[in-house]
Amino acid sequence: MELNFRPARLSELPELVRMLADDELGELREDLSDPVNSGYLQAFAEIGQDPNNMLIVAESGQKLVGMMQLTFIPYLTYRGAWRCLVEGVRIHRDSRGRGLGGRLINHAIDRARERQCAIVQLTSNKNRKDALRFYRQHGFKDSHEGFKLQLEYPG
Amino acid sequence: MELNFRPARLSELPELVRMLADDELGELREDLSDPVNSGYLQAFAEIGQDPNNMLIVAESGQKLVGMMQLTFIPYLTYRGAWRCLVEGVRIHRDSRGRGLGGRLINHAIDRARERQCAIVQLTSNKNRKDALRFYRQHGFKDSHEGFKLQLEYPG
Repeated sequence: MELNFRPARLSELPELVRMLADDELGELREDLSDPVNSGYLQAFAEIGQDPNNMLIVAESGQKLVGMMQLTFIPYLTYRGAWRCLVEGVRIHRDSRGRGLGGRLINHAIDRARERQCAIVQLTSNKNRKDALRFYRQHGFKDSHEGFKLQLEYPG
Repeated sequence: MELNFRPARLSELPELVRMLADDELGELREDLSDPVNSGYLQAFAEIGQDPNNMLIVAESGQKLVGMMQLTFIPYLTYRGAWRCLVEGVRIHRDSRGRGLGGRLINHAIDRARERQCAIVQLTSNKNRKDALRFYRQHGFKDSHEGFKLQLEYPG
């Protein structure tokens, strides 16, 4: 399957929110209102304005089949190394089981190399057994505990 | 103990690198050369130029007793919520066991609230048993696996 990776467009925001919500964890915390919740609009603008954040879609023909967000972060640790943090990885329900996740994550790794990152990192919920297996298969080491502290939801 | 939290200064960089290296994991990957490795200088400048990154020190009198980096990230998930990512948390060897770590992490949480973050998150190496216990005690849930993929070291 031919895949095109490119920045997400504002016109695609409702579709991106549907992809985030079409998920056992996402459905509990996302808002599918039409028109789209203003929180998403604001976040989309903030991501787009930040040169260290990229919201990327995978497109096949005219169809969005996947998405992810990359954040590039400069750190003192590892002798002053940049890292690439991956978040919000989704493959559209209709396109799963065809290896697209692997191609998406390989694209993340390519972008991280371009930006001379020393580490690509992400956290994945321990309940997502398939995702955990997927990342291990793609060479990621689960060397760390991923801690979250919820403050409160905005809006 | 009176603590002052403020942005790190360039003149403190050698001391910050020593604090990062004075650690069972840090000593394997940091460089204590004098003058300081240029990778640290560049990272310090990049962090300072980015309004979404803050390198914070905890100071007691004239002495640096702790450090951490905060990164504020806008995300689509959770209805367009910002998160605060915490990294490189260190308490100086001479100042451990006095509850300073708790005050440092509470400062991170305060800064995250100021920036209206919905989540404070971090990863901690599974070998750091004391740190894992510390974060659990401070209300963090280890709900996620923390995956890392090493590319290569810069420089």
